[in-house]
Amino acid sequence: MTSKLQGIFTPNMVPLTAQGDINEAELRRYIDWLIERGVHGLYPNGSTGEFLRFTEEERKRIIKITCEQAAGRVPVLAGAAEANARETIKACETYYDYGARAVAIVSPFYYKLSPESVYAYFREIALNTPIDVTLYNIPMFASPIDVPTIRRLAEFERVAAIKDSSGDMAFMIRMMAAVKPVRPDFVFLTGWEAALVPMLLMGCDGGTNATSGVVPEFMRKLYDITMAGKLDEARTMQMRMIELFDAMIYAADFPEGVRAAVELRGFNLGPSRQPTTDSQRIDRAALSRSLQCIMADFGYVDSPQEGCPPRSGSAAVDRITQLTEGVIRELKQRGAI
Amino acid sequence: MTSKLQGIFTPNMVPLTAQGDINEAELRRYIDWLIERGVHGLYPNGSTGEFLRFTEEERKRIIKITCEQAAGRVPVLAGAAEANARETIKACETYYDYGARAVAIVSPFYYKLSPESVYAYFREIALNTPIDVTLYNIPMFASPIDVPTIRRLAEFERVAAIKDSSGDMAFMIRMMAAVKPVRPDFVFLTGWEAALVPMLLMGCDGGTNATSGVVPEFMRKLYDITMAGKLDEARTMQMRMIELFDAMIYAADFPEGVRAAVELRGFNLGPSRQPTTDSQRIDRAALSRSLQCIMADFGYVDSPQEGCPPRSGSAAVDRITQLTEGVIRELKQRGAI
Amino acid sequence: MTSKLQGIFTPNMVPLTAQGDINEAELRRYIDWLIERGVHGLYPNGSTGEFLRFTEEERKRIIKITCEQAAGRVPVLAGAAEANARETIKACETYYDYGARAVAIVSPFYYKLSPESVYAYFREIALNTPIDVTLYNIPMFASPIDVPTIRRLAEFERVAAIKDSSGDMAFMIRMMAAVKPVRPDFVFLTGWEAALVPMLLMGCDGGTNATSGVVPEFMRKLYDITMAGKLDEARTMQMRMIELFDAMIYAADFPEGVRAAVELRGFNLGPSRQPTTDSQRIDRAALSRSLQCIMADFGYVDSPQEGCPPRSGSAAVDRITQLTEGVIRELKQRGAI
Amino acid sequence: MTSKLQGIFTPNMVPLTAQGDINEAELRRYIDWLIERGVHGLYPNGSTGEFLRFTEEERKRIIKITCEQAAGRVPVLAGAAEANARETIKACETYYDYGARAVAIVSPFYYKLSPESVYAYFREIALNTPIDVTLYNIPMFASPIDVPTIRRLAEFERVAAIKDSSGDMAFMIRMMAAVKPVRPDFVFLTGWEAALVPMLLMGCDGGTNATSGVVPEFMRKLYDITMAGKLDEARTMQMRMIELFDAMIYAADFPEGVRAAVELRGFNLGPSRQPTTDSQRIDRAALSRSLQCIMADFGYVDSPQEGCPPRSGSAAVDRITQLTEGVIRELKQRGAI
Repeated sequence: MTSKLQGIFTPNMVPLTAQGDINEAELRRYIDWLIERGVHGLYPNGSTGEFLRFTEEERKRIIKITCEQAAGRVPVLAGAAEANARETIKACETYYDYGARAVAIVSPFYYKLSPESVYAYFREIALNTPIDVTLYNIPMFASPIDVPTIRRLAEFERVAAIKDSSGDMAFMIRMMAAVKPVRPDFVFLTGWEAALVPMLLMGCDGGTNATSGVVPEFMRKLYDITMAGKLDEARTMQMRMIELFDAMIYAADFPEGVRAAVELRGFNLGPSRQPTTDSQRIDRAALSRSLQCIMADFGYVDSPQEGCPPRSGSAAVDRITQLTEGVIRELKQRGAI
Repeated sequence: MTSKLQGIFTPNMVPLTAQGDINEAELRRYIDWLIERGVHGLYPNGSTGEFLRFTEEERKRIIKITCEQAAGRVPVLAGAAEANARETIKACETYYDYGARAVAIVSPFYYKLSPESVYAYFREIALNTPIDVTLYNIPMFASPIDVPTIRRLAEFERVAAIKDSSGDMAFMIRMMAAVKPVRPDFVFLTGWEAALVPMLLMGCDGGTNATSGVVPEFMRKLYDITMAGKLDEARTMQMRMIELFDAMIYAADFPEGVRAAVELRGFNLGPSRQPTTDSQRIDRAALSRSLQCIMADFGYVDSPQEGCPPRSGSAAVDRITQLTEGVIRELKQRGAI
Repeated sequence: MTSKLQGIFTPNMVPLTAQGDINEAELRRYIDWLIERGVHGLYPNGSTGEFLRFTEEERKRIIKITCEQAAGRVPVLAGAAEANARETIKACETYYDYGARAVAIVSPFYYKLSPESVYAYFREIALNTPIDVTLYNIPMFASPIDVPTIRRLAEFERVAAIKDSSGDMAFMIRMMAAVKPVRPDFVFLTGWEAALVPMLLMGCDGGTNATSGVVPEFMRKLYDITMAGKLDEARTMQMRMIELFDAMIYAADFPEGVRAAVELRGFNLGPSRQPTTDSQRIDRAALSRSLQCIMADFGYVDSPQEGCPPRSGSAAVDRITQLTEGVIRELKQRGAI
Repeated sequence: MTSKLQGIFTPNMVPLTAQGDINEAELRRYIDWLIERGVHGLYPNGSTGEFLRFTEEERKRIIKITCEQAAGRVPVLAGAAEANARETIKACETYYDYGARAVAIVSPFYYKLSPESVYAYFREIALNTPIDVTLYNIPMFASPIDVPTIRRLAEFERVAAIKDSSGDMAFMIRMMAAVKPVRPDFVFLTGWEAALVPMLLMGCDGGTNATSGVVPEFMRKLYDITMAGKLDEARTMQMRMIELFDAMIYAADFPEGVRAAVELRGFNLGPSRQPTTDSQRIDRAALSRSLQCIMADFGYVDSPQEGCPPRSGSAAVDRITQLTEGVIRELKQRGAI
């Protein structure tokens, strides 16, 4: 249970019932499926997992179910951010009791805090938590954690890792340069799989990647290939994967594209807690068809009945073609054009 | 109870005990003090009120206490954002029962949502709330609400107002140009008092301004003077006020400067829920002294015993001088220099 | 010639021949037209005037023609930024000889400079120029000039004014609060007419506004009305003007919308120096038609032959309707739909 | 002369005389020195080379001198951006005559242009240039060139390469995924050496890196080591290099830190064309001492007489220590403390 965090962790989404409640059975089935396909760990209550759209009680329940179902087969990295340091520390204690391997705590968000405040927040937690803490840096959503702050926080034994979702390669190198000399055991994870291969090549220990909730087999293989130093194959796989990633991330409000993709693998995630309009549902159907074509190319799902546009060999071009055709098809079906 | 929202609303902070819990007695005393000094309304659970650092239960309790204590003397605009639309609607119902005049709901934050998603979110709420809704636009912290979205949402009768904290004068004019022709009763409030006078002059109905929690008498007078068309006096007051505002907003992580200023008026707000470091406490003491000098100039508090630097007549210059001197004084007291 | 800079200055565009060279005759005709319609001054080689798309020699020629043609009827504020401080000082000398009233110098751009470097740049110029300098702050395009820097630069007698195009009302108030106590004669101009009325109400001396190159009569009247304290009328005019401004500024890459609007007043500005594609020319034709409808509403041009959509009373809605209809009409004419 | 662009290109700075004019003799000496130390090519009139701070005539002279002095030993990639497309095309013709191998043209700057306008600009040039064009993407300073635009421009034979200074690893992968299938010969260069090793590992052909103007031997070796697949050594070199890079890039306004570093290698670059203040000169002296310590560690220069602080093993920590000590030393020498 104290093994180093390493490899591909899935920030898994949470299936909901038609009424919008946690669908426990489907969540357990999804967890089993992910583990069987080789992910190294689970990361519930992450950004992909929409931690913020659940209540305090629901977040606890999600971790409980995940730990139970993982049952020691893979480590659980539990998202533990709550309303303030005191509440977050309580969550750390609870998740420790549930059997989580470590927690991940996003930097304070909404208010944009200074580095000194970010430090003070994590320091307070580090001094009072019974469980290893992963700092979670996601500057597009939360107060950034800069390199000197990471270096200072690495002095606390309980601070064991950083998960960085900036996607900034140079920032990752700077972090490693600053921390490794003083904490050789410190773990570096990337949350931005669009640069996963180069991150791993430069020394990252793994990733917490939404894509692994969609094509876990592929992501596990990509990790293994890269760690084995097969650069040509890794590069090719990275380029294919970025097509899927971009389609999921940029074609709809995050994480709606991930939800659409997971459903194509046979899971019923239910309605989003973020309401949607009619026009968004049309876009979603088109996106789903586009994702199906991309994923069919991976070999994990069948092509849609109506077929897919020919592949030009250029991911960017293909994606635009598919999306456009999808929208037109949907509008035609509805008699709009 | 169905009067138009208008005038100066105070986004009041919540006093805490030494243990970090809500200090109900002090909160009630603070509410009385604000009402007695002329604010037109209260706005608990706003950004200044640190709604996000309280738990769901605490947020409810804050509204309950505020409505009880206001006791109809002034309207309560209750911050009601919760984890998702369903939870937010529940809060609307509760606050309606508590006697709030209206709710204010911040646009979805953390995830940056598209205008269509922002629309869908507020539409869902508008269709299901028993109480008037104020849209809360604060693009530095949350998904922006753009003009076409506001125009669309103004079609729902329950959407009665917007509170805009962007401080963007042209944006305010655009909103009024888009909405007033179709909803002459729609209320426009600004959350950025650094531009309060020009906003009022262009047609805003009022403001929800942190500064009114510190110098309520001054803000009420500024509002009255401006509405009476005394431009020269209003301009002068606006320039004085911006000095206080800037010192509170930019000299420490928000809303720590507001907390320091409210304490100077004789309230014990207790420790922040955001942990602080030693160096921040030194900065805080210096800021407090600087704020005291500014507020002494307003005539609301005494000057600090050790006196204040002479006023140069330029707010920006004076502020920097004061802050620098304050830090040096503090460091000397601690023997650091 | 040493009168205070005050009122509405037109950052006039430069007509080109079909071959892309300066069309001197049309430029002179345009200058006369502007002066006759009441603008208080001219501002050649501004951002609207595309100073950067002309060569060093051409920029000199533009100022020479403008000063000659103005012939003392109105003051000329000459854009004088060149490759470096030395070249800029040379331009100041030349423009002084040409009879310009003052120069405007944009903050260094491309590289983002620190406040200290911005100060050093303007200080060097201030110490060596024979002509009054207007600092030109346009943070969306160039290194920002912050309040302390403006305050420091105001100590140089030759630094006589600031032209701010940030549109930030609070920033303008801060500048005035910092500078007026030490330099009561300092001139404040706004380059963001979307907030012109409130800026004037708060104490600005005038504006350098692209819109005045399109509807100079209207902008002059807006200025006079506002300075006369007729608030209701000023507000209404500001709301109408922002519709025109937004259509010009946001519907095409700046300053292409201004060019289209000036042409509707009967001037032949020739082709832009920035190449365009077929699809942009379609968009441009639609924009032109939309602008014509807006300007017909002002009474300055006839409606297009094919008529205009009915006015909803909401500028934002009307603008979108017009643009959409314009694109569809153009596509139909080309047989595309 | 038509070989593929590949390897390390130096965006060389231009030495100036005490009077601020181009120091031709020193420029020629610097070019020889760079070539002798193994850089694969020269890139005059880049951002590091301060192209914008020279006049049109000076830019031409810089390219002429560089081509003459290189004399075919290494290819010259000539920065060719001028005031507009017509002027830029003229520069392309001139530089072709001078013997440049290719030109690099920065995306239009100051105005922020849409992708369609960026496309139109480069299309016009591509259709009229006699010399291969490298697109230059530097979104922090100029209008961004996005992936679909690059893909469209790659259809012009004369568009042969892209130089990307965003440092965005995923963007580089996307570009390669979009362009390589249709243009296998297209060249990808990175201008952000903070991520040089991973960029090369993912398929980049080389870089145009300011650091190679300072430690050309090191950068050449880093390139060779990386291309030879010696990952461990490459990673270590990358981490050392990033310390030098950060100190040069972030400790002073760009490219002042590069100038200070080149001078430590024995070249007299003369005064910057950007004026400086006294306090900046103090900072510059401290930075120079700090850079000397870093470069002494590389073995290319001697340590400063007064010695260097002990190395902690953490680049980030060391850099801060050095900078602080440097400032204090300088202030003491001046009697300020």
